[in-house]
Amino acid sequence: MSFNTFGRVFRFTTWGESHGPALGAVIDGCPPGLSLSEADIQPFLDKRRPGTSRFTTQRQEPDQVRILSGVFEGRTTGTPISLMIENVDQRSKDYSNVALAYRPGHADYAYDAKYGFRDYRGGGRSSARETAARVAAGAVARLVIPEVKIRAWVEAIGGDAIDPANFDPDQIDANPFFCPDAAAAARWEMRVDGARKAGSSLGAVIACEASGVPAGWGAPLYAKLDAELAAACMSINAVKGIEIGDGFDAAKLRGEENADAMRPGQNGPEFLANHAGGIAGGIATGQPIRLRVAFKPTSSILTPVETIDRNGEATEIATKGRHDPCVGIRGAPVVEAMVALVLADQKLLHRAQCG
Amino acid sequence: MSFNTFGRVFRFTTWGESHGPALGAVIDGCPPGLSLSEADIQPFLDKRRPGTSRFTTQRQEPDQVRILSGVFEGRTTGTPISLMIENVDQRSKDYSNVALAYRPGHADYAYDAKYGFRDYRGGGRSSARETAARVAAGAVARLVIPEVKIRAWVEAIGGDAIDPANFDPDQIDANPFFCPDAAAAARWEMRVDGARKAGSSLGAVIACEASGVPAGWGAPLYAKLDAELAAACMSINAVKGIEIGDGFDAAKLRGEENADAMRPGQNGPEFLANHAGGIAGGIATGQPIRLRVAFKPTSSILTPVETIDRNGEATEIATKGRHDPCVGIRGAPVVEAMVALVLADQKLLHRAQCG
Amino acid sequence: MSFNTFGRVFRFTTWGESHGPALGAVIDGCPPGLSLSEADIQPFLDKRRPGTSRFTTQRQEPDQVRILSGVFEGRTTGTPISLMIENVDQRSKDYSNVALAYRPGHADYAYDAKYGFRDYRGGGRSSARETAARVAAGAVARLVIPEVKIRAWVEAIGGDAIDPANFDPDQIDANPFFCPDAAAAARWEMRVDGARKAGSSLGAVIACEASGVPAGWGAPLYAKLDAELAAACMSINAVKGIEIGDGFDAAKLRGEENADAMRPGQNGPEFLANHAGGIAGGIATGQPIRLRVAFKPTSSILTPVETIDRNGEATEIATKGRHDPCVGIRGAPVVEAMVALVLADQKLLHRAQCG
Amino acid sequence: MSFNTFGRVFRFTTWGESHGPALGAVIDGCPPGLSLSEADIQPFLDKRRPGTSRFTTQRQEPDQVRILSGVFEGRTTGTPISLMIENVDQRSKDYSNVALAYRPGHADYAYDAKYGFRDYRGGGRSSARETAARVAAGAVARLVIPEVKIRAWVEAIGGDAIDPANFDPDQIDANPFFCPDAAAAARWEMRVDGARKAGSSLGAVIACEASGVPAGWGAPLYAKLDAELAAACMSINAVKGIEIGDGFDAAKLRGEENADAMRPGQNGPEFLANHAGGIAGGIATGQPIRLRVAFKPTSSILTPVETIDRNGEATEIATKGRHDPCVGIRGAPVVEAMVALVLADQKLLHRAQCG
Repeated sequence: MSFNTFGRVFRFTTWGESHGPALGAVIDGCPPGLSLSEADIQPFLDKRRPGTSRFTTQRQEPDQVRILSGVFEGRTTGTPISLMIENVDQRSKDYSNVALAYRPGHADYAYDAKYGFRDYRGGGRSSARETAARVAAGAVARLVIPEVKIRAWVEAIGGDAIDPANFDPDQIDANPFFCPDAAAAARWEMRVDGARKAGSSLGAVIACEASGVPAGWGAPLYAKLDAELAAACMSINAVKGIEIGDGFDAAKLRGEENADAMRPGQNGPEFLANHAGGIAGGIATGQPIRLRVAFKPTSSILTPVETIDRNGEATEIATKGRHDPCVGIRGAPVVEAMVALVLADQKLLHRAQCG
Repeated sequence: MSFNTFGRVFRFTTWGESHGPALGAVIDGCPPGLSLSEADIQPFLDKRRPGTSRFTTQRQEPDQVRILSGVFEGRTTGTPISLMIENVDQRSKDYSNVALAYRPGHADYAYDAKYGFRDYRGGGRSSARETAARVAAGAVARLVIPEVKIRAWVEAIGGDAIDPANFDPDQIDANPFFCPDAAAAARWEMRVDGARKAGSSLGAVIACEASGVPAGWGAPLYAKLDAELAAACMSINAVKGIEIGDGFDAAKLRGEENADAMRPGQNGPEFLANHAGGIAGGIATGQPIRLRVAFKPTSSILTPVETIDRNGEATEIATKGRHDPCVGIRGAPVVEAMVALVLADQKLLHRAQCG
Repeated sequence: MSFNTFGRVFRFTTWGESHGPALGAVIDGCPPGLSLSEADIQPFLDKRRPGTSRFTTQRQEPDQVRILSGVFEGRTTGTPISLMIENVDQRSKDYSNVALAYRPGHADYAYDAKYGFRDYRGGGRSSARETAARVAAGAVARLVIPEVKIRAWVEAIGGDAIDPANFDPDQIDANPFFCPDAAAAARWEMRVDGARKAGSSLGAVIACEASGVPAGWGAPLYAKLDAELAAACMSINAVKGIEIGDGFDAAKLRGEENADAMRPGQNGPEFLANHAGGIAGGIATGQPIRLRVAFKPTSSILTPVETIDRNGEATEIATKGRHDPCVGIRGAPVVEAMVALVLADQKLLHRAQCG
Repeated sequence: MSFNTFGRVFRFTTWGESHGPALGAVIDGCPPGLSLSEADIQPFLDKRRPGTSRFTTQRQEPDQVRILSGVFEGRTTGTPISLMIENVDQRSKDYSNVALAYRPGHADYAYDAKYGFRDYRGGGRSSARETAARVAAGAVARLVIPEVKIRAWVEAIGGDAIDPANFDPDQIDANPFFCPDAAAAARWEMRVDGARKAGSSLGAVIACEASGVPAGWGAPLYAKLDAELAAACMSINAVKGIEIGDGFDAAKLRGEENADAMRPGQNGPEFLANHAGGIAGGIATGQPIRLRVAFKPTSSILTPVETIDRNGEATEIATKGRHDPCVGIRGAPVVEAMVALVLADQKLLHRAQCG
């Protein structure tokens, strides 16, 4: 695999900088004959879009996607699908002070250490805008796995978690936080507003469930479904942790508490628990796949932070410009997209080896 | 990447079943001229070996490695290095009752769903014995990255964690638990003994630190160092979660608490904190890389568990044979090996692109 | 590797159909810091462009390339480089009769057999226009290997070969045939004119030489430099054969005739012959790399040919529209581009493994 | 793809040096449930074996293969299949004079240039013995493609070709030359005997046909079936050229002569010719796939040749030891194996993308 390509059979490569003219993705290995148009992709981009509420970054981007290849008469041809999203609202001048100084927690210093220089505008390629390309690619991936339903939501912001007893899936798209708990959503509105006004930022935990995955997808060990999901989610900007099923809580259980016992069922076994989160030995068991992803708080804050500049001299930096007080909120559609991309690839891989 | 191959430039493929004649690894892309012999590998295998204490599985395997290719006159030639470890103590008859029934929490059901049948003996390829091949490969990887020091330890067993104030690295190899806290090691002795006698099992959390990694290793986004580490560790049998740096705790911090401020230093910047765990934007910052891995409890327990058999009929299963009451203990050398393998690959990748 | 991605470290993926809105390439793994602008790429596209003489297809395409990412302040950033070339002169109506019938020698039937349907306009993705994307990518590859000089020329058209005694490299760019033999160029003018007027077509043989490749590039066996060059050239539309060095003629020589003896030289050995074409055991020897590529005649001819239609019924087909009477002519810049792409990848691979 | 791994879904990695203890292959991505034992592999190794006649090298190797993993109760499990062949008859002392001097035409000098040193014994990894591992892997590949019949034969030795009018497939296995023309076989006996006694060597051309390949296998452009076959065959030691269908002869034909016209047939179209050699646009057309491979003469000859030694000083070298007067003869089973490996991979790839 290359530096910027993900997947084995259903593969995608993204390109584009935050402040370049456009972003895009090239999707490779898509089965032919699937109905595809911009209308299949745009809704997912709209869900992710910045500037839709005061709780996310104030950059206004229409994020209109164009399909440039791989589709003929409304169906995928099996050849590469090129998607492009043009950047409109770059405001490069907001970043003028970061050209010389390194923002702590950002990749600035690391990029310079690796490449010798970097496109500093808006975080260049490390910007969260790159996720627009992933979300677009994820929309295409969903067409490959119509049998699967993928849904992500925000489980906690700044340590304040939802109450599982209040879980209502219909709430997820009813508030700006992808929050399934209306009471939590109300609390979060005040928290995030407060963080934004204070020039601070908050972390978040995203939960995601994929149901309808047939038992058998995933290959043992190095293409383990859980390893692939881990890599996919960990590759999202600001992610610092991932759990499958009970995750770190499983480490506290005893064997008999953690077992997912089975009974005979109508279509395959009926499981009595799902501590494993739908994956055993790297292969899907047929149970819903459950995972949780930890997003650290945005490193772009208005509070000055001690840092150094390109000459190694001490300085301070406070990032101006428009920023997310909580990047995790918009992480939910991105996590969904990555899960879709991994599952599409795994479906084709399984088909390759096992028919 | 293939089903069973890991890495991009420094690549390895493992093979072998738990109850087959042997296990092995083929390492590809190793730089030439490195001094290598069995003596460089064997100590790491011995550290990992089953049967070394009553706290781990009672299977007695010498795990003697042989180098079959890729080395001439004591140095790597740059051509593939084939390592082989012969299985000695298989005791297949212990697994006779699992041929027909599925052990909950194991990959049995999932394997059958994928492949139609499976080598049920000792878990076939899903067995933890495959990790012997990884540990051997990891020993070779270490030769590629002499500048890096990798150390893993057990941080908690069954929810009982070490006390950071008692952290003493010299304790790690002084007890059977790779535990840096002597007091915790004493408590764990009783816990694990108890679990073993009760036919139960416990989970564990492994922490790992890699210091000396130069800033710059890692490539943005899809070959992100943290994503690669996540995939590598998640691919270890029984792993259910992984964190980099503060991990899920970062999700509870505010931006200004999570920032790793910088000051001028002698060789590059001096960081005032390491919430990021040594990686930003997928690239190493030069700080120690810190990660934590969650191991679920062994699914092989002597308590009968409700399950189904191959015909879909209800049955019970209690796995006899020899098992780990806590697989996480031996996970520490495996985590070290995976970290070494990823870092070796990343070093060469960085060299490929940036010289 | 994917269906449409080539290379291991310096990788590129192309996209785009002949009659879609655009074509492009995403280049991945390019070293950072290289000076790059459209001006570095455009001349190679111009060399390849259709419509530049009556001897090539009459489609008028400006083939203007745009760099959409991966470059900042005139230098490569190390992140993916996206190149786009817009299609202007598609004339879809010329292809209306091929929607139902299969053109013999084209991929039409094979595409339908694979995908179930196809974008029939202008050959869809099997069209030679895709090579514009490759030529653009090849221009970027050249920046990675400034030490190498690559030159291709047409050696024969329709069985009429140049006379080695008349070989003058300055003639290559002085006629529309990339022909180093002025006398042959004059003959070819009449041949190709005749073929075009008759609605027929001719094959060609392209020769290419890459000098300045240091000994050591290339990896044994499966990443053999000659195997990679073979795959790269064979992937060009209409290519049916490839030779390295003496090629099929070597099969007629005796061992002592084929040996490339060596003497001491100033910078490494002085070779007394180059039957091997610069590659031994898959690794460059430091001698000029020589290869020859055979292009079959264009399958699009105005003479009606017996074929079947989509319903399996007998019909005839004569392709109208604008076509190359000899695609091999424009194959020369494409061969150069592919050789550049392979050598750039091999240089980085060598650097990865051997420093 | 890695340095020593070939294929995308059905992948294999070989390892082992000519004078090391063993050679082997790890096959990855093999579908589960295929019946496999050593008896399925051994006959192909026997066909390839050195020492079976005075016309090939006099090294006596039993080439007994062992399956070490990936098979249970006689069927493939879907997990990696490890094959091992032990070296018995190394005779290292025969190579003592080549430690310091470079044999022209061999990879000696190139290996040293790349790696800094090399395993000089018997050509180390560049030795033709590595092909034993490929032939073993090819035997497994054949199980994946039972619908395909693959047959290779020697078409010419030292420029002396068979007479197509005398082609009798039953002769191929009836003489030591895999020659389908009994008269040619008789002439070749004298030629090769003469070359061997003179300490010289001869080149050869191998032809191969694969019939029964369904239309649709192969993916456009970078996973083109012909490009994959080209890479696979060119990676065989001593290969210098490859043609598909009419190959270089197609470059001399006019479009109307080269067209493979079609008529309605019973199961898909009936083709009136097969100039394309069964592949169009990189995809199989359903016609027999035909290819030709050129082998240069063995570089190991008893005639002293001018060369340099490791210190760059002039010297002469005449290789002693046991050598093939015509490596091309044993190239036939190797070409068959490579074709099988590519077709197995392509079958699974097609299944992945198109079901």
